[in-house]
Amino acid sequence: MSGELRQYDKIIIGIDPGTNVMGYALLGVKDKSLGVLAMGVLRLNKFDDHYMRLHHIYERVAGLVEEFLPDEMAIEAPFFGKNVQSMLKLGRAQGVAIAAALSRQVPITEYEPRKIKMAITGNGAASKEQVAAMLQRLLALSPDDMPQFLDATDALAAALCHHYESQKPVKSHGSGSWKDFVAHHPDRLAR
Amino acid sequence: MSGELRQYDKIIIGIDPGTNVMGYALLGVKDKSLGVLAMGVLRLNKFDDHYMRLHHIYERVAGLVEEFLPDEMAIEAPFFGKNVQSMLKLGRAQGVAIAAALSRQVPITEYEPRKIKMAITGNGAASKEQVAAMLQRLLALSPDDMPQFLDATDALAAALCHHYESQKPVKSHGSGSWKDFVAHHPDRLAR
Repeated sequence: MSGELRQYDKIIIGIDPGTNVMGYALLGVKDKSLGVLAMGVLRLNKFDDHYMRLHHIYERVAGLVEEFLPDEMAIEAPFFGKNVQSMLKLGRAQGVAIAAALSRQVPITEYEPRKIKMAITGNGAASKEQVAAMLQRLLALSPDDMPQFLDATDALAAALCHHYESQKPVKSHGSGSWKDFVAHHPDRLAR
Repeated sequence: MSGELRQYDKIIIGIDPGTNVMGYALLGVKDKSLGVLAMGVLRLNKFDDHYMRLHHIYERVAGLVEEFLPDEMAIEAPFFGKNVQSMLKLGRAQGVAIAAALSRQVPITEYEPRKIKMAITGNGAASKEQVAAMLQRLLALSPDDMPQFLDATDALAAALCHHYESQKPVKSHGSGSWKDFVAHHPDRLAR
């Protein structure tokens, strides 16, 4: 597997952690081409025990990191929820996935669901199906594979969103004033 | 250190995870005697970056587990909070600490703050200082050590609460009806 992986310049792991279902996807980047290395779903509702669920999230994320050696992690992270109880549980699921990446020195960037949908479809309120259909076109996924992976597409969308973000030109620092420009580009001053 | 640790029948790690301060304590149990092996505080507010804080929680908890090889973890876990944002952050801090224990097969039990205060002082609404004073008496801690460890006493209280809980006689199963009693104790039937 490692020989196969080395063909990519960068590998991004996308994670959509939830307490009932965790989606994951591994996106490989080589120049302008993108490839899906793996995607899948961890169904947690078969476990009644909350710690068992968290343990499975940790084990799976740690296992994927060890297998695919991703350079970066993108995580879908809602900042608002129905109530404090559900947010505490969601926070724990996120924390466990984050720990699995941090313990292996994988840097993490989180994205709000709206931002991910916007990046993939141009519409921050797009449905799961619209996101999946767009991913299918963008990444030339086989239509046969899509239904079984529907819960994993949010994770793939997070990884692709992260790739788009890292392709953007570097933002200028400061307020954008002339003074700041001069401070950051002393070489461009005509003396 | 391992020779020293082996004198204990059981070692409990208590954790009070927060996003600004994490308290920890290691309680050793040998027959009827209890000893504090370590306690301390991880100050996280010096780190602006949220992931840096989570990484430090993970590293410290994992390090303590590797050093002291605790048999069980007790975690102070509030179930209610001011708002969804703070609960998400708290959930992440808890999740990271939980992952550090789960990845090393340490079973976890969580206790609400009220339950811990009740177990230590007999008053579920006791102040931090009352809990600390009671711990000082129960565990014969040096008064000189207390002020610097005040933020760690909640973690020690969680560990001691867990010890008390595990000393309780095993609860009877079922509804407590005669039928249940017979079902669980067939040997006691006079035939």
